[in-house]
Amino acid sequence: MIVGIIGGGQLAQMLAMAGQPLGIRCLFLDPAPDACARTAGELLCGDYGDARLLDELARRATVVTYEFENVPEASLRRLASRVRVHPHPGALALARDRWHEKRLFADLGLSTPPFVAVDTRADLDRALAVTGWPAVLKTRTMGYDGKGQRVLRTPGDVDAAFAALSGTPLILEGFVAFDREVSLVAVRSADGDARFYPLTENVHRNGVLVQSRARPGDPMASRAEGYVGRLLAHLDYVGVLAVEFFQKGDMLLANEMAPRVHNSGHWTLEGAETSQFENHMRAVLGLPLGATHGLAPSGMVNFVGYLPEASAVLAVPGTHLHVYGKAARPGRKLGHATVRAPREGDVLDALARLRMLADAGGAG
Amino acid sequence: MIVGIIGGGQLAQMLAMAGQPLGIRCLFLDPAPDACARTAGELLCGDYGDARLLDELARRATVVTYEFENVPEASLRRLASRVRVHPHPGALALARDRWHEKRLFADLGLSTPPFVAVDTRADLDRALAVTGWPAVLKTRTMGYDGKGQRVLRTPGDVDAAFAALSGTPLILEGFVAFDREVSLVAVRSADGDARFYPLTENVHRNGVLVQSRARPGDPMASRAEGYVGRLLAHLDYVGVLAVEFFQKGDMLLANEMAPRVHNSGHWTLEGAETSQFENHMRAVLGLPLGATHGLAPSGMVNFVGYLPEASAVLAVPGTHLHVYGKAARPGRKLGHATVRAPREGDVLDALARLRMLADAGGAG
Repeated sequence: MIVGIIGGGQLAQMLAMAGQPLGIRCLFLDPAPDACARTAGELLCGDYGDARLLDELARRATVVTYEFENVPEASLRRLASRVRVHPHPGALALARDRWHEKRLFADLGLSTPPFVAVDTRADLDRALAVTGWPAVLKTRTMGYDGKGQRVLRTPGDVDAAFAALSGTPLILEGFVAFDREVSLVAVRSADGDARFYPLTENVHRNGVLVQSRARPGDPMASRAEGYVGRLLAHLDYVGVLAVEFFQKGDMLLANEMAPRVHNSGHWTLEGAETSQFENHMRAVLGLPLGATHGLAPSGMVNFVGYLPEASAVLAVPGTHLHVYGKAARPGRKLGHATVRAPREGDVLDALARLRMLADAGGAG
Repeated sequence: MIVGIIGGGQLAQMLAMAGQPLGIRCLFLDPAPDACARTAGELLCGDYGDARLLDELARRATVVTYEFENVPEASLRRLASRVRVHPHPGALALARDRWHEKRLFADLGLSTPPFVAVDTRADLDRALAVTGWPAVLKTRTMGYDGKGQRVLRTPGDVDAAFAALSGTPLILEGFVAFDREVSLVAVRSADGDARFYPLTENVHRNGVLVQSRARPGDPMASRAEGYVGRLLAHLDYVGVLAVEFFQKGDMLLANEMAPRVHNSGHWTLEGAETSQFENHMRAVLGLPLGATHGLAPSGMVNFVGYLPEASAVLAVPGTHLHVYGKAARPGRKLGHATVRAPREGDVLDALARLRMLADAGGAG
């Protein structure tokens, strides 16, 4: 069985490693000759729009999936006419555009922050009257890890933010002074078997995820599962889907979805009965899904811009190290460590030690 | 970090897969161009005595280890003069010869079945007077999976058995009508940190392991740990060591040791905090060892000679599939499934279902 993956970064790498024991081989399409996934499968090196390579992928793979949202639509159409693509391109098109995504959330009854599409400077003033202050101006597409967005706190911020981001469709969203950020990672098979991982509590810094903690039994889980279950069913989704939420008091506001394995699900590598990576592979290949329950209190720390010594990381009890093999650059995700321990307090201690190691390299 | 591995079978493959997330790359030496480990690292294809390839291994690897006992001594000497080799060749030399191995067990105070070295037909008669009946005549070296041994039940068996095996040094051992077979997998670091996995209860058929079950809290564990601890310390051992025992009533008799990761430790892939494969890699590279405790009731079933459908295996709750990618041949280990479940009874049910799937292909 060969799975084609658009993108050759760490998500593709971890999908491929999850497939190896099952006898699944992976074929990656990525323009970077040093794409880190190449260590776990075969790299087709070329542009995401390269027709010859797309056709090779379609010919050799049983099914094609992807590790990021911004796959060119023409490439997806070309692939989908030749080979099964999971999750299907329609789900990806929705997730790629923040306005369509929020519109879908609202249509399905998920609570969201107020949001308004913005194309012109005049739109922006009208939108601010809807969202109130502060608000966040974002590009509708191509944003990730906090890129492509500006917080508007006072009228004096508006012109500069619009100038910085305009030229592409925008969305203005009400700023949520959240109590916490949570995400729900789910997986669904082609025959409609939907399963949810324990709700995950996340910490971001400068828009980049730095820490996750599994929260089995979280009081918000059933509402989040209801929301994500509606999305999965509506999209007739196959594979892993992650949805990020803001929690403010008793409100759970859907922020965005990722039609793929997700950084906030990395703790499932050691912390869940079946990892998000293995379950995505099982789902897209039509194999029975594995259980998603947690095995023990678990969490994860990202290594961003700097990779601590393996010996220091592994000296933290209950820690498992995942190094992507990427060249270090500021702001780049280079690896992560998961923690699994018998007691919640041990996980918190280990996460704190790992955060200190992660920060020892400077700003990240 | 590059680890060189002598042998490119499934043990080397699983060592390499355990190393991948840690950023460790593996280089295998194996004469078979289709050695299954090649999917998880780089294969140097050639004879185990090939001086040029041995030197390449020594030059490129940080440390060299092996996946089987029968590495030629000259190759080990050549490697050891150029690169660190763990476990050290002395341990391997002892494990390779059943008489030296049993002698060491006895010298260190481990109980063993009675054993006598046999070179001539006359030796064999004298040996039978020591062991009594029945007894097992074995080649001292190169035996594995029940190969190279004959059970002597009556005087009429003696001549044929001697004729079949003689020409190489032999050992006669008392036959143990054991109550059960258990093994202890242990790991030791260069600085003497020794850790033990839960005792494992094993079922063999025709000399080949077909099922293992982790038995945390087993009443025999502390005696087994005392025995294996003595071996680890005496050998100044670095890496994973497995020792197989027969239990008969209150007796625990050491049968053999394997200076490497071991089939009876495959359940640790999902069942233990740190797998035997990851801990072997950590040990030989001088990284801190991971915890060895079990995560939940766990077990394993081998797929010998026949590989059931992935969809059937994964439909058994709590099951994780490991396929080696080897061509099917009678008696060949092609893969295994581990089971991890909240309750012991669920593991027993799953193991029974997996045994049925494993046997569906015929004799195996």
